[in-house]
Amino acid sequence: MSKPDKIKARAPRGFADRGPTDLAATERMLAKIRETYELYGFEAVETSFVEYTDALGKFLPDQDRPNEGVFSFQDDDEQWLSLRYDLTAPLARYVAEHFDALPKPYRSYRAGWVFRNEKPGPGRFRQFMQFDADTVGAPSVSADAEICMMAADTLDNLGLSGQYVIKVNNRKVLDGVLEAIGLGGDAHAGQRLVVLRAIDKLDRLGPEGVRLLLGPGRKDESGDFTKGAGLQPDAIERVLAFTEAKGQTGAETIDNLRKVVAGSARGEEGANELAEIAALVAASGYENRVSIDPSVVRGLEYYTGPVYEADLTFQVQDEDGRPVRFGSVGGGGRYDGLVGRFRPEPVPATGFSIGVSRLLSALQMVKSPIVSGQEKPGPVVVLVMDKDQIAAYQRMVAALRKAGIRAELYLGSSGMKAQMKYADKRQSPCVIIQGSNERERGEVEIKDLIEGAKAAEAIASNAEWKAARPAQFSVTEDKLVDAVRDVLARHFG
Amino acid sequence: MSKPDKIKARAPRGFADRGPTDLAATERMLAKIRETYELYGFEAVETSFVEYTDALGKFLPDQDRPNEGVFSFQDDDEQWLSLRYDLTAPLARYVAEHFDALPKPYRSYRAGWVFRNEKPGPGRFRQFMQFDADTVGAPSVSADAEICMMAADTLDNLGLSGQYVIKVNNRKVLDGVLEAIGLGGDAHAGQRLVVLRAIDKLDRLGPEGVRLLLGPGRKDESGDFTKGAGLQPDAIERVLAFTEAKGQTGAETIDNLRKVVAGSARGEEGANELAEIAALVAASGYENRVSIDPSVVRGLEYYTGPVYEADLTFQVQDEDGRPVRFGSVGGGGRYDGLVGRFRPEPVPATGFSIGVSRLLSALQMVKSPIVSGQEKPGPVVVLVMDKDQIAAYQRMVAALRKAGIRAELYLGSSGMKAQMKYADKRQSPCVIIQGSNERERGEVEIKDLIEGAKAAEAIASNAEWKAARPAQFSVTEDKLVDAVRDVLARHFG
Repeated sequence: MSKPDKIKARAPRGFADRGPTDLAATERMLAKIRETYELYGFEAVETSFVEYTDALGKFLPDQDRPNEGVFSFQDDDEQWLSLRYDLTAPLARYVAEHFDALPKPYRSYRAGWVFRNEKPGPGRFRQFMQFDADTVGAPSVSADAEICMMAADTLDNLGLSGQYVIKVNNRKVLDGVLEAIGLGGDAHAGQRLVVLRAIDKLDRLGPEGVRLLLGPGRKDESGDFTKGAGLQPDAIERVLAFTEAKGQTGAETIDNLRKVVAGSARGEEGANELAEIAALVAASGYENRVSIDPSVVRGLEYYTGPVYEADLTFQVQDEDGRPVRFGSVGGGGRYDGLVGRFRPEPVPATGFSIGVSRLLSALQMVKSPIVSGQEKPGPVVVLVMDKDQIAAYQRMVAALRKAGIRAELYLGSSGMKAQMKYADKRQSPCVIIQGSNERERGEVEIKDLIEGAKAAEAIASNAEWKAARPAQFSVTEDKLVDAVRDVLARHFG
Repeated sequence: MSKPDKIKARAPRGFADRGPTDLAATERMLAKIRETYELYGFEAVETSFVEYTDALGKFLPDQDRPNEGVFSFQDDDEQWLSLRYDLTAPLARYVAEHFDALPKPYRSYRAGWVFRNEKPGPGRFRQFMQFDADTVGAPSVSADAEICMMAADTLDNLGLSGQYVIKVNNRKVLDGVLEAIGLGGDAHAGQRLVVLRAIDKLDRLGPEGVRLLLGPGRKDESGDFTKGAGLQPDAIERVLAFTEAKGQTGAETIDNLRKVVAGSARGEEGANELAEIAALVAASGYENRVSIDPSVVRGLEYYTGPVYEADLTFQVQDEDGRPVRFGSVGGGGRYDGLVGRFRPEPVPATGFSIGVSRLLSALQMVKSPIVSGQEKPGPVVVLVMDKDQIAAYQRMVAALRKAGIRAELYLGSSGMKAQMKYADKRQSPCVIIQGSNERERGEVEIKDLIEGAKAAEAIASNAEWKAARPAQFSVTEDKLVDAVRDVLARHFG
């Protein structure tokens, strides 16, 4: 018989599967985050994965083809649908849709997958998880201050005390700087975005790189050229002065900022808001964890006021083995215009988003017990010695399960050796064996694989090893459950 | 200023959002399912939401447009991608991709969202959740028997003992019947599918309706005509005899089936497999929960052997108020060809899929404590009486949270009355009030909203009500946390 061509089994580029270790670690981490958010009075709400493309905003259809960045498809009534690219735009739609029924301010949180139609790369996925918390309908910066403190408490709850800083800035301050150098008004919106994205690269490129991006443009090591904002030298220096405005204390930083934005009403408003946030944060004793920092801008266009970022301060090695700070695991800010796109009244809002897989790698790097905790033991495996005895083996498995012990019958068609290998691969604590000899005696044999591995190791290292606890022993059938319980207690307490 | 046109806020047709009650109920239900699956030695694995369209099978691109039923879009390298429409096809891809690294047989489970590009309707969504468990690499029907028993244990663990039956049939038996009436071979594949789908409607249409679908076709009440399979009367009767083969016992059913498939080797093989499953199930004491039932066919094309369905037997009312059995909450079967689409060797597999929202409604209907359990109390709300005292109020909130009490500061800009309304909407157990009078005395006022509601109710019903526990009282600031703890203990133990 000729075989048909086989399809190649592969996940699409930029999409990843997740195994049991990763899933369990993520779930434990998410539970900790949820715990803190609940304590702050936030409640769970989840939106659908798909939205009308126009409701997502920013990425509107360009003629009949939606913009890049999102995965889109047309519904049978010709309307464009998109997979959500973040959790903020869908939340804005949700709140607007259920506005009258919701308590206001409305505090909510959600963990969820988002999708980006971007070029995938190492560590850069097209499907990834975010964990967001948002307060909608709260106009004052107390809401921003609260979310910053909640971000700090979350990282404390994850065991990262002393290893992070929540940095706070304000888009209005930046707007003031841009106004002061003549980039105010709608006509300069595009140029302002270029400046903003240049500043966002400060961490990675340093002041010299950003200076080029603010001016004529920059060629990177691979020869790729990024167009610059084309600012004049004095304007460039003013922008850089803004990024370097951080002082020894929050008060000093705010004083510096007031100088940079002098003459811009919007800039002064931003500085005042930062002063208010700094005061609230200090009053609650968070001044060492939440810090005013003008270097934070955040890449998203919809922010209108305070913006914040959670940075981990410990060192890791970059691709070239050089030490670098771990950096951002999340961020957010105030987006007063987003819900208002749907509503007649203005609806102020602020929110914070955690990059779940990035935070997970950080916890793995510091060997946090939350993500590296001992996995539960694998299942006890009942081996199949005689195929006509399946029902009897199945009964043993059922008895173990009834006692709450994770157990399974070997369901393949291979022999003894392969079955033992299988049990090893499943990390079984022990296997149950009943061949015809044992059956005649009404017994089962229990092979303790953990003890057995220790014994093998000891022999291999030539150490003197005496088996005080036998790795293999027989019991009568009625003692099976008790004997397995003993083995489990021996290794897992 | 002229207002721009507002976008209408609405979730796309067939997509739903989920609030906190629904999320918590689902999570508790999933945890119970997971518990049983873990006990059976299954381990968690999750695949990505997006697959190459060809890897999903069945729905192959028709020219340059993929078939209906799935949401698809082209990648920038022109390859078609699709949102997964079930969890089985992606698992087959996953196992094939990681074949050498996985233990075999490979037992795994996953809960996940799937997407169908179908016409939405009441209770019919385009995004819904399934919870699957699969054993891949196990050729014998012991694996099918095990999954049926696991499905039974899962429903027991969910408190549905005595209210369900796991029905088992075998596609090979049906194939035998079809062979016997001359519908064997590739040439009749399409007609076989029509017959199969007709039988699948037995529950809903009864034998008369199915008889029409097997013969000339059927016009429903709305006048829509469904084309029939065009079978001859004696063929129709043989198919119906097959669906009615269920006897008083499993043995009787299998005897009946043997008669219906007499002469077809494949049919006899199927009957033998059912006899084997019945024996295994009986040996483990599941014979009253897992039952051989020829009426089960399952709609999916990829099944090759045993098929099974979990049916809830209690009565509910249909749309017209007539009593009907609740029916299916999940099903599955053996799909020996699916992994083999990617691999040179045959890879037998069997799996079971739970319809999560359907099971959830069933549990809600029987008022299961798993899904209707008391929600945790809402947050304690600290009211804002003086806007210049935000920092002081924030400190109270922080003190409560530090004590593990869910608490929040009112972050809106409304007055006292609206703040009280807000606290009611959040189901706050109590609010904290400190105006200038209380502040001067170094006190805070605590208003117990649950006690208050009881009092109001008692007054409204004109009952004589004496407040042994005052609904409103003052304490000094340093007693705030203790006093709130007392209120919580009073109502939530």
